[in-house]
Parts: sequence; structure tokens; C-alpha cells
Amino acid sequence: MERIAKVDPWKVISTDVKDKKRVQESLTSLGNGYMGLRGNFEEGFSGDTHIGTYLAGVWYPDKTRVGWWKNGYPDYFGKVINATNFIPVTILVNGHQIDLNTDDVRDYHLELDMKEGLLNRSFIWMKDGLEVKFSFSRFVSVATKELAVVNVAAEVLSGQATIEMTPHLDGDVENEDSNYDEMFWIERNRGLRPYPFLTTKTIENNFGTDRFTVTTMMTSQTDNLEKRSSADSELKVSETFSKDVSAGDKVSLTKLIAVVNSRDIAESDQVEAAQAILDTATETGFTGLKEAHINEWATRWNNADVIIEGDEASQQGVRFNIFHLFATYYGEDPRLNVGPKGFTGEKYGGATYWDTESCILPMYLSITEEDVSKQLLVYRHNQLEQAYTNAQKQGLEGALYPMVTFTGIECHNEWEITFEEIHRNGAIAHAIFNYETYFGDDSYAVEKGLDVLVGISRFWADRVHYSKRNEKYMIHGVTGPNEYENNVNNNWYTNTMAAWTLRYTLETLEKASDEKKQSLAISAEESNKWADIVEHMYYPKDEESGVFVQHDTFLDKDLRPVDSLKPEERPINQNWSWDKILRSPFIKQADVLQGLYFLGHEYSMEEKEKNFDFYEPMTVHESSLSPLVHSILASELGKKDKAFEMYERTARLDLDNYNNDTEDGLHITSMSGGWLSIVHGFAGMRTLTGGLSFAPYCPTQWTGYQFKLKYRGRLIAVHVTADEVEFSLQEGDALTFTLYGKEVKLEDTLTSTLHEKEGVPEATLTNAFDK
Amino acid sequence: MERIAKVDPWKVISTDVKDKKRVQESLTSLGNGYMGLRGNFEEGFSGDTHIGTYLAGVWYPDKTRVGWWKNGYPDYFGKVINATNFIPVTILVNGHQIDLNTDDVRDYHLELDMKEGLLNRSFIWMKDGLEVKFSFSRFVSVATKELAVVNVAAEVLSGQATIEMTPHLDGDVENEDSNYDEMFWIERNRGLRPYPFLTTKTIENNFGTDRFTVTTMMTSQTDNLEKRSSADSELKVSETFSKDVSAGDKVSLTKLIAVVNSRDIAESDQVEAAQAILDTATETGFTGLKEAHINEWATRWNNADVIIEGDEASQQGVRFNIFHLFATYYGEDPRLNVGPKGFTGEKYGGATYWDTESCILPMYLSITEEDVSKQLLVYRHNQLEQAYTNAQKQGLEGALYPMVTFTGIECHNEWEITFEEIHRNGAIAHAIFNYETYFGDDSYAVEKGLDVLVGISRFWADRVHYSKRNEKYMIHGVTGPNEYENNVNNNWYTNTMAAWTLRYTLETLEKASDEKKQSLAISAEESNKWADIVEHMYYPKDEESGVFVQHDTFLDKDLRPVDSLKPEERPINQNWSWDKILRSPFIKQADVLQGLYFLGHEYSMEEKEKNFDFYEPMTVHESSLSPLVHSILASELGKKDKAFEMYERTARLDLDNYNNDTEDGLHITSMSGGWLSIVHGFAGMRTLTGGLSFAPYCPTQWTGYQFKLKYRGRLIAVHVTADEVEFSLQEGDALTFTLYGKEVKLEDTLTSTLHEKEGVPEATLTNAFDK
Repeated sequence: MERIAKVDPWKVISTDVKDKKRVQESLTSLGNGYMGLRGNFEEGFSGDTHIGTYLAGVWYPDKTRVGWWKNGYPDYFGKVINATNFIPVTILVNGHQIDLNTDDVRDYHLELDMKEGLLNRSFIWMKDGLEVKFSFSRFVSVATKELAVVNVAAEVLSGQATIEMTPHLDGDVENEDSNYDEMFWIERNRGLRPYPFLTTKTIENNFGTDRFTVTTMMTSQTDNLEKRSSADSELKVSETFSKDVSAGDKVSLTKLIAVVNSRDIAESDQVEAAQAILDTATETGFTGLKEAHINEWATRWNNADVIIEGDEASQQGVRFNIFHLFATYYGEDPRLNVGPKGFTGEKYGGATYWDTESCILPMYLSITEEDVSKQLLVYRHNQLEQAYTNAQKQGLEGALYPMVTFTGIECHNEWEITFEEIHRNGAIAHAIFNYETYFGDDSYAVEKGLDVLVGISRFWADRVHYSKRNEKYMIHGVTGPNEYENNVNNNWYTNTMAAWTLRYTLETLEKASDEKKQSLAISAEESNKWADIVEHMYYPKDEESGVFVQHDTFLDKDLRPVDSLKPEERPINQNWSWDKILRSPFIKQADVLQGLYFLGHEYSMEEKEKNFDFYEPMTVHESSLSPLVHSILASELGKKDKAFEMYERTARLDLDNYNNDTEDGLHITSMSGGWLSIVHGFAGMRTLTGGLSFAPYCPTQWTGYQFKLKYRGRLIAVHVTADEVEFSLQEGDALTFTLYGKEVKLEDTLTSTLHEKEGVPEATLTNAFDK
Repeated sequence: MERIAKVDPWKVISTDVKDKKRVQESLTSLGNGYMGLRGNFEEGFSGDTHIGTYLAGVWYPDKTRVGWWKNGYPDYFGKVINATNFIPVTILVNGHQIDLNTDDVRDYHLELDMKEGLLNRSFIWMKDGLEVKFSFSRFVSVATKELAVVNVAAEVLSGQATIEMTPHLDGDVENEDSNYDEMFWIERNRGLRPYPFLTTKTIENNFGTDRFTVTTMMTSQTDNLEKRSSADSELKVSETFSKDVSAGDKVSLTKLIAVVNSRDIAESDQVEAAQAILDTATETGFTGLKEAHINEWATRWNNADVIIEGDEASQQGVRFNIFHLFATYYGEDPRLNVGPKGFTGEKYGGATYWDTESCILPMYLSITEEDVSKQLLVYRHNQLEQAYTNAQKQGLEGALYPMVTFTGIECHNEWEITFEEIHRNGAIAHAIFNYETYFGDDSYAVEKGLDVLVGISRFWADRVHYSKRNEKYMIHGVTGPNEYENNVNNNWYTNTMAAWTLRYTLETLEKASDEKKQSLAISAEESNKWADIVEHMYYPKDEESGVFVQHDTFLDKDLRPVDSLKPEERPINQNWSWDKILRSPFIKQADVLQGLYFLGHEYSMEEKEKNFDFYEPMTVHESSLSPLVHSILASELGKKDKAFEMYERTARLDLDNYNNDTEDGLHITSMSGGWLSIVHGFAGMRTLTGGLSFAPYCPTQWTGYQFKLKYRGRLIAVHVTADEVEFSLQEGDALTFTLYGKEVKLEDTLTSTLHEKEGVPEATLTNAFDK
């Protein structure tokens, strides 16, 4: 943990050019769901930097390369690819190219303004008595998705200078990610009229996946600068402006960039489309474009801001989360999903992980319109055929959703993940359940949902085996959510989610129409087998301690707590060899506890507490998905200090670089962690039993917190202070819900003192389907 | 299983040009321990072919490429690389280039003559009424290691023809093996004088490993051909000869090739050295060179031939084994070891596997001089420092010998092998024990051997952990010899070999000099820990059945025999996804049984039988190391049919392409399998208790068999027939040994009837160290 940016409720501020440069670049990324980029410098930087510009849904299939090929490996790993770098504005002062890696500057100030969605930067540059103040401001418009804007201003403080600015586009880009040593773009077209542009296309591939064409176009509006020239060469176009200026003089340049691609617009129409965007943008001008952008962010914040009283670091954390989450995915495009690094880096590749169902959906249920949540479910329904293909590649029946994918086809190429981390199927099923219970609406579940549930159930039914010795169904050869164990037998979580899915599928089938049932062609033999598996599934448990055992031989380990590790050993994934990690008792992320979170309504407080107390001390939280689950469970169990510690770890994971990997990009899919830790954790919101319940408390580190919820047509504002909780109904009809285990009715506002006894009372521990 | 070559006691014959071409190429490879090549056609072949020419100890470090990097992975995988192709002789008849892929031929005959070490080929080529008989004969000289000879003769049977022959050298070669898409040779020099030559050098690498320079030079002696021209271009040199001939005319060309490399001769001296070899060869001429070569093979066969009476297929199998084993390694160069494919293919890479200790040494102990066996031990001693480095890369104490290596540094890049298949260390220790007991000489063990044993013991002592729950030492996270299970806990074989190594090390230490002990700096604490591990090691066992359990949860599987598989599912490694293989009960190769073979003197017949009967039916024998162990154990247990089935499977593994992978090259390291199945199996030879014992029987499929043994300065010939066994002492002093459990003395010859009750009697079940 290291505090890189200054603490501020709305901003991420740095006054050091080079300290953790790559981490700073990740933290100050911008995006609008359509495109985005890392916090690179417009003028260039000769020191260590990772230039990254990414377009949602634009990817390349990188041929799988492994030491030893195994049957069933995917042919390729779909990678997010770096696209044309559109922010550069090279700056020369008296012929010297500005470079913060080597030049003298003072008053350096970099700030990501999360409220307005702007990246601002300024510094005073000095050389031979000459002083020039430079100011940069940029945004990727959330009002016009294809538009990015860069404003550069220079003011001479002392001396005389010729200032030259060369905005340009650079299509000669590479990925840094391992295994990539090839160019993946070719130039299709370039020109200087109507505006300078580059049209690039991804190179051919042998896998028959889509190729993408992208046109990037720029124009500049200047103040007190004169155009000198234009130039173009392979994968590059530029314009140059300059002016001789003296102390007190100011010059400025606004670079307007349009990026269109073949996901929306055919290659032949791209130049025209980009031109139209720039024509309109030129007319509107920098101020107007910025205003529209800021207004849209204001609307987003108004719907979803979480206010924390009495703790600026916590406040900054949760806003940082929400800002980057919305920058990545706000639900406009149903073809997209939530990539692991969003537009902040290229590690991992793929667009969709089970993180979407486990971390993103639970938050989006409450903050977006219902159709965005449904869209996330439909995304998986659309890829059901590919999920069947994935299972078939392993010689198995049914549907196996991918670990990593762009199209639904599995891309991951480590056997212990690709073939074995099959618990991901459980999260896909759980999302349907989560949606059904949140909205009290089973219409999705009994139609499209059933297609998915049946596919997954068929997979589980084929993947289990019956152990004659134990007279139980078992699941051998899996990797659980804790990826620090591979190829284990009877991972409690996986077995639990498999049996739960089969049960939920059978229950949902009973509610389906005859027509639907007929179309699914499930024989009595098949459903009987499912019921038999539900009844005879094996769940490893230590009867003595009451602990659900992570997998068969976990208790034979040399069990010891994380605090027995030396600081220099952590994170262990950067310091230990893989075998040492696997043998150790240390847990990457919630595993048994993930199950107790997903199916929290089916387990007692005593079960949760025993398992939390056993597993959490051995958990290193080296997955970004880990702290939020622990924070929520800790809140439920009244472990306030642990809940707060985990809140900070999830909300400030990247801001404080907890796992020493923020330089690779931000952990986008867990950006919901801060919000969930507050709403599901501190406020104790639950919906899985079909109703809505709360059991709020206020962390002692705070004086209060506020958030808003969308719930079945209502907008509810919640304000928790040290003493009381206030619910106010801002939109929609009166609502009955459960507060501290008792039914209450919210008509306008409703206030209650906080209960000292936290946690979800046992009374709510019922299965939604038992009713 | 498919019979590709004709059955013949001394030859491998094919009369079909294209049937399983790549398999034929593998089967007809030639080698002399220094260099070798696949059975490619001199005149070229436009169809599917795998051209392969390899030089012992000449390799390239191929950068490790994996989907996801894990700490501790090796930087590179050392690969056998294809070297300058030196056999080509392009042939034009009336301007048409001979190509057996497209041309009409009759009387095609290809034969590998194992007795003489020659590859002979002939056919009658036909076109437009013209008929020419071509005959080829080639060898890689075992008399002069740097020399290869190709003879091509043509006889016109009808018609008139201009015959042109162009012997050439081709340095523009590639590897087929996965991940290789780069050239790895650059030309350093080429010329046409004194003889046409190419000097090539391996490209630079980033790993600081040796680069190799190779000079390949050729000259031709012709009969009735006239030289027309010479030519050279990048990586190519050639000479052309031709003649106009009519029916009855004969022409011939002998291409002499010298290959020298920087392992022996500096680059600057290579041309001169190659020239000297060719000068001498030219003087000697084809007939003389061939004679010297055949004579050397005759000596080899005289020492090591195994004669099988009454079964030509069995006879062919064991000679095929011995031929290719000697072609790969005859012990001349202490820097070399036994590569998995020898000179017959490039799959796997690396020069040294644990196969050397488990399969090769046990045979070489008996057929070569003692110094060759010792040399194999010293090879590992020379790499002890690298073994410490390998362990250190995993954060462990002591020495870990590599799974695959050229230099001692681990090259394998699958975590489940690299980091986990650590049982390999046990075989290295066992080889020292095997040598000590065979020769009755502990002088190696107590000196250099101890360095190795202590290094390995330190590794084991750090790699185990103490399970408080079980009050036992355990070894988690391993892959046993059965690589169809990965990352298992308490693999019985690994735990057994680890504890055995610690015990053997402690016992050997007691015999060491004070000086030696001091140099090893073993504290009382350290040796006490070792003794404690020996005493408290955990061995998974099923008390009910008496079976030693392969690993902790093996018995929870859906246990079923191999004969429940459909034929189209086999080999499973070519038809099943990896996870399906891992979950299945099917065993790649001897695992528990490998332990019962290595430490056969420590287990009772009852223990062996129970385990054999349990595991063998689940074993698919998809490793070439498997059948020999099963054959030997089956013989010991009186399971004659199984022993014979396994003999055929090991001796004819490649001849009959049992595992459908002979096209990749031959399974060189298990070429000892036929010999061991006969000598340790059918003849029941044992040496591990410090003495020599036999319990021979004759398979009912044979009428008899004969072999020779070197044993402590003696040469003993053994002849077993259906009724009796005869031992004759051919060299050395009289010897007392055990026959069917009774002591006998061999002075000249000794004859005994065969005992109906086979197997090693319980009386020999003692530990050599208990004496």
C-alpha cells in the first residue's frame, strides 16, 4: 500500500512528474465506454511510459503459444489492442522539444477531475532564463462518444520564444503485453483533407474472427498560432502551427479528434462520418463541447454518487471507483461488456470475465435502469451457442461459459483455468437468480434464462462423477475462485454452486410454459439425474470445526496466517514460484466465502462466522475481487474493523496500489467494490430472498454516508449517520421492506436509530424458492 | 498398433514409398552418437516429409513463450536444432527431376540393415518407355564420427537418357517443432574449394548460452559421370555431374560428407579439419569406408546382441532397440547424454531426461565398460551447481535436477512439470545406488555421489511440510511419473523415493571419510531432520485392499479399466482434453509400480501383486517408459502373458507405432526396454541387494533366447531355452550368484532346468544397507 495521489474528495492530484509514472498514467485514464486512453502526455515523454489508446470491442486474436500443446486449448487469445494514438501535440520552444523527462519545470500539477471528467495538467517550463507556463486539458466526451478533445495553452512568463505545436496522429503502435511482437495494424488510407486522418485496419488472422477498420481524424482550433505546414507518412499525419511570442503573450490550440470504427460505420463511410463529427464539434467549439460533457457527468453523478462524511480518503476511493466504472461501461452498447482493464491498459485481454456477474451486476441492479441489467444477462444468452462449443471442445455436454472472451469462445490458454476454473458457470446462473429476486420478476428466468440454466445444468451433470466408495457425486479437477490452488478435487464452492444451479434450474423449469419445456427437450431421465446430483452432492466439511473445507486436502496443509509472511514476500504472486504458492495455505480471494456471499440467504450466521474466522486470516487478497466480499461478510458479522479495512482495500486498491500492479492498468471489474461494501456491507442491503432488507451501521471512521438506489421503479435515497438512518423515497410508489429484521413501510421518509446488533437476522435466512 | 515395416531378424524393410512416410523416416534414421539424420530421400521428395539432420550437443535456447508467465519459469527451452542437410543428391533424367511423390516406379525397396548400419534403397523409375534402376546406400560412420557417406547408382534398363546428379549441401533449414518460426542459423562462410563447404553458426541468443559453428563439407567420387559445374549461393553449395547413357550403362556417385563443429574444433580450424577428413576418406574410398563401419558395428553386436529363438518379430524388436540406442549414445563423449529422440526427430528438445537414470543406466551397467556407467553419474555431478540453481529459482534449498536440459539448467516450461515433477530427483539418487550395488563398489557413492545425494536430500527436506493434523511429513503439489495427474498431494512414489533418498544419504554419510563429511557441512540438526522425515513420512495406503494409493484422492475417482475405453478414444492423449485425462483413472505410465521396480528388494511379492493387479488394468502405457517396468514386474509375478505383451509393446513400440507418434521420431530413451524386459524380466536378473541373482523362464512364444552380461570384470553368456538355462563364463573369474534363490558357482558353464515357480523368492527381499 502506497499513497500515490493526493487525497481529495473529487480529484486525483499529483505534483511529481516521474514518481510511479506508469501508475499515474493508469490512475488518470479517461474513457467514455466507447474509447479511452491512459494518462499519457500530449507532448511526449522520453522516459518510461506506457502509451495506450483503446477502442471498445476492437481486438485481435493472438495465436495461442504454449510450451506443450494440450487438446482443447483455444486457438487464440483475444487481446485488447492499442489503437492509433490520437492525443499527441509535439511542442517546440525555440526549436527545443518539450520533454518532462529531461527538462526543468516547476509548479507541476496533474489532476484528474472526476466530477467533470477532465484531465488537467500544468507546469512552468524553464530554459536559459525563458519561462513558459503550459496548461493542458482533455476529455473523451460522454456527450458525443466518437469525440475526444485536447486543449493546450502556453503563456510566456519571461523571455522571448518561438512556440511551435504539432498535433498529430500516430498509427504506428504496439502492444506491450507478453507474446506480442508483431504489428497488428495496417494502413488503409490517410489524408490531410478535409481534415488530417488515418484509416487503419487490423491485420489478417487465421481464425476467421472479425477484422476492424478505424478512422481517426483530427482538426485544430488555435488562438494566436499560425498554421505552417501539414505532413503525412506511413501511419502518421500531422499539422504544424507556430508563433513568435514574448512575456505576457498566450497561445493555445484545441485538438478535436473523431474516432469511428467498423463496428458502427463501414470503412467506405468512415471519412465522411468522422468529418461530420468534426464539423459539428468545430462549430460548437471547446467551451460548448466541454459543457455538454460536464453536464452529462453531472447527470451520472446525480444518480449514483455516494457521499461519505468525515473521511476524504474513503470519499475519494468510492468516487474513483464509480468514475472509472462508468468510463468503461455505462450500458449504452449491448454488444459490449466490462473488460478487466477497461481503457487503462492491455493486460489480460478479453472483454468479459465472470467478474461481470459477480461484481458488476450486483451494483448495476441498483444504479441503472432495469434494461441495462437485463442487457448483461442477454449478452450471455447471445453467446450460449459458443458456450456449448466450449464444452464440446472438452468432450463435455452442455454449456461452459468462457473464462475470458470477446465472442463467447474461450480464449484463456492455461489448462488449469481454461478447462478447470469451471465455477464461472455458477456465476452466470446466479446472475439470473440475482436479477429475478431483485426485480421480483421471473419472466426472464423462465424464458431466455432457462436456455442458459439448462445449458449450464447439462454441463454440470456431465462434469460430476459418482464416487462409488463415497456414494456421492464429486467434481474432480477444478480450480476454484482461489486461483492459488489448481486442479483440486471437490472445491466446496464449485460443488455448492453446481448443485445450486441444478436446483434452481429444476425449480425454474416448474414455472416455465409447456411450450418452453418442450423446446428444451429435457427427458425425465435427465431431470431425475439432476435431482439425484442435488441430493447426493459431496460437500467437504470438517465436522469438528464446522468449517466448509475449501477442497479435499486443504486441511493437510501447513496452515498459518498471512501475518506470518515477511513484508518482502508480498504480494506472493510477485515473489514466490508457482509451486510454492500452490502448496501454501494462502488464499488469493474469497472461495468458500464467495459461496457464503452468493448464497448468503442459505447459511446461518454461525456458519458464516466460523468460515470467515478460519479463511480470512489466510487470505492475501491478491485478486481485486476479494476485499469486497470480505468487507460485506465482515459487516454482516459485526466485524467492523475488518469490514472497514476491506472497504479501503477495495475502494482504494488502485489509488494506493495495494497489489503493486496498478501500472498495468486499473482493476475495472472490481470498481464496484467500494459501492457494494457500503450498500451491501455497511447498510446491509439484501435482496436474494425476494424482498428488500437493510441493517445499516456507520463505520466509526466516518460521521455518515449517503447513497441512492433504484428499486422496482423507485428511487430511494439513504443517509446513514453515526446515530440514525434515513430513507427517503424520491421517485415511485410507497414500499414495504425489512429493516433490522422488522417490516417497515416507506412512503415519504423514514428514520430509525441504528441498531447496535448488526448483521442480517436469522429470520431472513430462507430460500426464495421455498416460499 | 500397426505393422509398418516387414518382419525380418536384421532388417527394417518397406516396399511402399508413401505409406506412413514420416513414420518410415523415423524408423530408418541413422546415427553414430555424434550426428545423425532421419530416413529422408537423397533426391528430395515433394510430398509430406520431415527433413531432419541433427548434431549431438548442438542446440538453441528457444525463448519461453507461455500464456501467463509464472515466477520461476525457465527463460528458454533448449531445443535440438535441425542442421545443414547434407544428404541431398538431386537427380535429373532427361531434364526431369526424380520425385517419388509423383513419378512412376516399381520394385521399390527400402531397408535399414541393422547388422551393418546401412540404409539401402532401390527402385526402377519409368517414364515414356525409359527405365532406370536407382540404388542408394548410405551410412553415418561409426568408425570416423565426422563422416557420412552416400552412394547413388543408376543403371539404364531400357531407353536412352542424360542422367544428371547434383550433390549439394543445404543450410537453409528450419525446425518444425511448435513455437519455432525463426531461422536459427546464419552463414559464416562458404566455398567450393578445396571441396564445397558451408560454415554456419547459430544465431545470437539473449540467454548467454553457447553458440555453435558447424562446417559441413562434401566431395564426390564418380563412376561414368562427368563434372559439369559448381555453384554456391546463400546457405547452399553444389556440384553437378552428368552423362548421356543407354540401356545397360551404369553410372554412380559417392558423396563423402565431413561435419565438424565448434564443440570439438574452433571455427578457424574447421575447414582444414573437414578437408583432412575428406582427403583420408577419398583415399580409402567407398568400399573401405563401408568395411570399417560394418566392422565396428560387428564388434558392437558381438558384445550386446540378444538372440531370440522362434520369433522373428521379437528378434527384430530387440535389435531395433539396440541399434537405435547405440546410434544415439555409445558412451564415447562424456559431455553428452541420451536425448529423447536421438537423431530421429526434434520433438521435446533437451538432451537429458530422468529416463537416463531410470531406463538407460540399468542396461548400460551390463553391456558397457564400467566407466561408461560412471560417466553417466559424473554427468549429473558436473551439473550439481545448476541443480542448486534450479531449486533456488523455486525458493527451495538443495539441488533439483532438471526435467529437461542441455546444461543442467531446467528448460521445461509447464509449471506442473517444471516445478512439480520433482520425483526426477529420486532417480538421480537411485542411479548412484544402482551403480554401487551392481559393481559392489561404494567409492563413487561416498565421494562425488555424496555431493549429489546431499544436494538432493536438502531439497527434499525443504520441500516436505509437516502436517500437524496428521503428525506426518507430506509432499504436496507434485506430478508423479504418471503425468496424467498434475499437482497432486502425497504421490506415493514421490514420497517413497524422497524418504528412501534421505535414508540412503544418511547411510552413505556414515561410510564417508571425515574430510568428506566436513566438506559437506551437515549439522546435527540437519541430519536429525532428515532422520525424522524418514521416520515420519506419510505413505497413502488403502488398508482394506493393501494397495499403496497413487496419491491422496485417487480412490475417489470413477475407477474403471482401460478396456472400458472405446478404440477411437485411444491414445487418450490425442483424443481427450487435458481435464478429462486428469479426472480419469487412467495412468500414463508406471507410478506406484515404478517404485516397486526401483525398490523391488524392499517389498514383498504380495505387495507387488496387489498393486500390479490394481494399477495395471488402468494403465494406458502412453509413455514409452511404461511397458518395460510392467513387463519386468509381470515376469517376477509369474504373469507370463502380460510380461510378453509388455515386451512386445516396449520392443516394438516404434516399429508398430503403438502410440501413434513415431512420426515425431523414435522413443530413444526407452530403447533399453526390450533388453531389460528380457534380462531383468524373463531372466529375472537382480542386483540391488548387492549380489547377483537370476530366476529365468522362457516365454511360451519363444523357443529360447541368449544374451551377454558384463559383471564385475566378467563376461557371462546366458542361454535360456524352453527347458533349461545355461550360463557360460566367457571372461573373468569364477563367480557365485543366486539362481532361483539358491547360491550357485559359475566357473565355466553351469546348466539348470527351469523352475516352474517363477519370481524372485522372498529370501532376496533385504535391504542392501541392512547387511
